[in-house]
Amino acid sequence: MRKELSPFIVMDILKLAQEIPDVVHLEIGEPDLEPPPGVIERLNWAVSKGLFNYTPSLGLWELRERIAKHYRDYYGVDIDPNRVVITTGTSSAFLVAYSILFDIGERVALADPSYPCYKNFAHLLGVEPVFINVDESTNYQITPEHLEGLDIKGVHISSPSNPTGTLYDEENLKALCEYCKERNIYLISDEIYHGLVYEGKERTALEFWDRAIVINGFSKFFCMPGFRVGWMILPEDLIRRAEVVMQNIYICAPTLSQYSALGAFDYDYLSKVKETFKRRRDLLYEGIKDILPIKGKPSGAFYLWADISEYSQDAYEFCLEVLKGAKVALTPGIDFGKNQTNHFVRLAYTRREEELKEAINRLREFLS
Amino acid sequence: MRKELSPFIVMDILKLAQEIPDVVHLEIGEPDLEPPPGVIERLNWAVSKGLFNYTPSLGLWELRERIAKHYRDYYGVDIDPNRVVITTGTSSAFLVAYSILFDIGERVALADPSYPCYKNFAHLLGVEPVFINVDESTNYQITPEHLEGLDIKGVHISSPSNPTGTLYDEENLKALCEYCKERNIYLISDEIYHGLVYEGKERTALEFWDRAIVINGFSKFFCMPGFRVGWMILPEDLIRRAEVVMQNIYICAPTLSQYSALGAFDYDYLSKVKETFKRRRDLLYEGIKDILPIKGKPSGAFYLWADISEYSQDAYEFCLEVLKGAKVALTPGIDFGKNQTNHFVRLAYTRREEELKEAINRLREFLS
Repeated sequence: MRKELSPFIVMDILKLAQEIPDVVHLEIGEPDLEPPPGVIERLNWAVSKGLFNYTPSLGLWELRERIAKHYRDYYGVDIDPNRVVITTGTSSAFLVAYSILFDIGERVALADPSYPCYKNFAHLLGVEPVFINVDESTNYQITPEHLEGLDIKGVHISSPSNPTGTLYDEENLKALCEYCKERNIYLISDEIYHGLVYEGKERTALEFWDRAIVINGFSKFFCMPGFRVGWMILPEDLIRRAEVVMQNIYICAPTLSQYSALGAFDYDYLSKVKETFKRRRDLLYEGIKDILPIKGKPSGAFYLWADISEYSQDAYEFCLEVLKGAKVALTPGIDFGKNQTNHFVRLAYTRREEELKEAINRLREFLS
Repeated sequence: MRKELSPFIVMDILKLAQEIPDVVHLEIGEPDLEPPPGVIERLNWAVSKGLFNYTPSLGLWELRERIAKHYRDYYGVDIDPNRVVITTGTSSAFLVAYSILFDIGERVALADPSYPCYKNFAHLLGVEPVFINVDESTNYQITPEHLEGLDIKGVHISSPSNPTGTLYDEENLKALCEYCKERNIYLISDEIYHGLVYEGKERTALEFWDRAIVINGFSKFFCMPGFRVGWMILPEDLIRRAEVVMQNIYICAPTLSQYSALGAFDYDYLSKVKETFKRRRDLLYEGIKDILPIKGKPSGAFYLWADISEYSQDAYEFCLEVLKGAKVALTPGIDFGKNQTNHFVRLAYTRREEELKEAINRLREFLS
C-alpha cells in the first residue's frame, strides 16, 4: 500500500527549470511576499528570551488563544482555544487527522484533481482514498450527490482549492456539512488558502457544523512557509487522541515558529497581501485566458487551472516543451490526479507583476 | 492497530507536578543548557536575510555537507552528503524510516524497555513491533542471540539508551551489524544521545556497516530541542524513497532551524555540555545508588534506570507518592514497556547540581 506513494512530478520540472537561465517560475506553490512585520518582532523577542525548549504537544496556549480569537474576528465563530491544536505546518495536521480519524483499511473521499499529498497521507497510513472526479460543472467541488452510496468514513475537501483556485459556495458547503453530520461521516476542510479569496467571502466549515475538522496554517496567506506552523480545529472528544499522536510523532511544532506566529494576525498588512495576489490573478487570467482556457472560477488561492488540450494530450510533455521553448515553468496537471489531468496545467501567480507580464508574452508567442 | 497508540504516562505526572510548588523535576527528557552561541548567530543571520521559504525536502545542502563533515571529524567515517537527510527532529526521521523500510504488517524488533515512541511509530503505520526483553545481563542491549529465529524485517536499537543510559559495546554493535547484513535485515540505530557518553567512546553503527540507518539530531547533545531539527543517514538506494515521503508529509524541516543548526558544531562548547552532564550523572548516581539500585551501566544520555522493587511493585503509584511526599518528579518505568517496568523509575539529570542535591536529600529522607 505504501508503495503507492507518488512523488511530486513538478519537482522534476523544478530541477530542470533551475538549470535553464532566465526562466519565469509559475510552478511555485508558496508566496514570495514577506511575513507581517510582527512575525519578525515576535521571533526576535523569543530569541532574546532564549525560548528554545519544547512546548506542550498541543502547542503554546497563547497561540491557541490567538487563533481562537481569529475565528471570532474573521468568521464570527466561537471556538474554545482547547479545540485549537498547533501543528508542524498543515502537513502534520493532515497526518494527525488521518491517524486519529481513520484506521487501516478505512476509506476517505478525495476530489480528483486535488492536492497530491492528500492521497499520499492515506497511502502512508493504510487508508484507502476514494477519488471523486470533479470538473467545472460543479466548479470542482464535491457535492453530496457525489458521495451518495459510497462506503466512506470521511470526506476531505479544500476551498479555495489547489490546483483549481475554485471556492466552495456557501450552499454546497452547508449541504456537505449536513450530509456528513446525518451520516456520521467526518468532514475534513482544508482552509489553508483562506484569506486569499478575491470574489465573495470565504466561509469556514465551522460556521455550518461544529464537528467539522478544519485545517489551516501560516504558510500561504500569512506568508510564513519555512516556519512550518499550522493548526487544526478539532471536536472536543478528539483532542486527547490528537495529543497522544502528537506526543509520539512530533513532540511539538517548532518553538520559535510558534512564538513568531503570534505576530501574524496583522489584518492591515494581510489585506495588502490579498490585494497583491488579486492584481496578479487578474493580470495572468486576462493575459492567457484566450490561449489557455481557464476552467472553473478561479476566485482564490494563487492558482489557475488551464486547459491545454488544444495543444497537447500529455501535460508533462507540454510542460517540458513550454519550459524549453518559452522558458516558463508550469506544473503538469498529472500531479493532481488522474481525472483528465493530462489535459491541464497549473499556473501559480506567486511572482511579481513584471514577471507575470513576461510570462504572458512568452506563452503567447510560443503557443501562437 | 492504530488504537494501540499509547500516551506518555509521564505527561500526567508532569501536569500534576506543575500544580505542586517547589518540585524538583527529574522527569524532563530535554537538556536545560543553552545551545552553542554559533546557533544564535546563524539564526540571526538567516532572519536578517529573510530566509523564510521552504528548503528542498531533503534539507539545506550546506547543512547536509556540514553533518557529513561531522562524521569525518567525530567518527572518522566518510559519508557522502547526499546520504544525509535533514528531518524535523528525530521524530520525523523515525516516521520516514519506518515508512520507507516497512510495509503494513511487517515486523520490527524493539528492546523492552525502550523509548516509547518507537512502538507507536509502528502502530501508527501498521507495522508490528516485536518486543525483545532486555535486562542488566546484557546491559540492556539487544544481541544477535535475541534475534535468532525471529521473522523480522528490521531491528531498531538506541545507544546510549533512553531510559537506561546504557551503551552498546563495540563488539556487540559489530556483531549486530553483521547479523543484520547477513540476513538482509534493516538496522536502525538511534544515536541521538551520542556526545553524551561518559565512559569509553561511542561508535556509530556506520563504522561497522555502511547500510546501517543512523538517526540523530540536535535536540540533546546540541541543546536545541525546540528547533525540531534532526537527521538521518541512509544507504544511497533509499534516498529517493525518503524524498518522496518527505515531500508529502513534511515538505521540509523548519528553515530557520536548519540555518541555526549550521552553528551547532562547536566542539569546545559541546565538550563543556558533556562535562556538565557527566558531573551531574556522578552526583546523582552516587547520591542514590544505595537507596535506589541502578541497573545497567549508565554511561551515557542523561538518565538513570533505578530499581524500586524494594518499595513498590507499581511504578506509577510510587511516582505519585514520591511526587506528593518528597516533591521529586520521576518517570514511571511503565512508560518504556512491559518488561518488569513496574519495578523501575527513570531519573533524568537535566537539572542544575544544586537541584540534584536537593532531590537526593528529599529522596533519602522520604524513602528511609
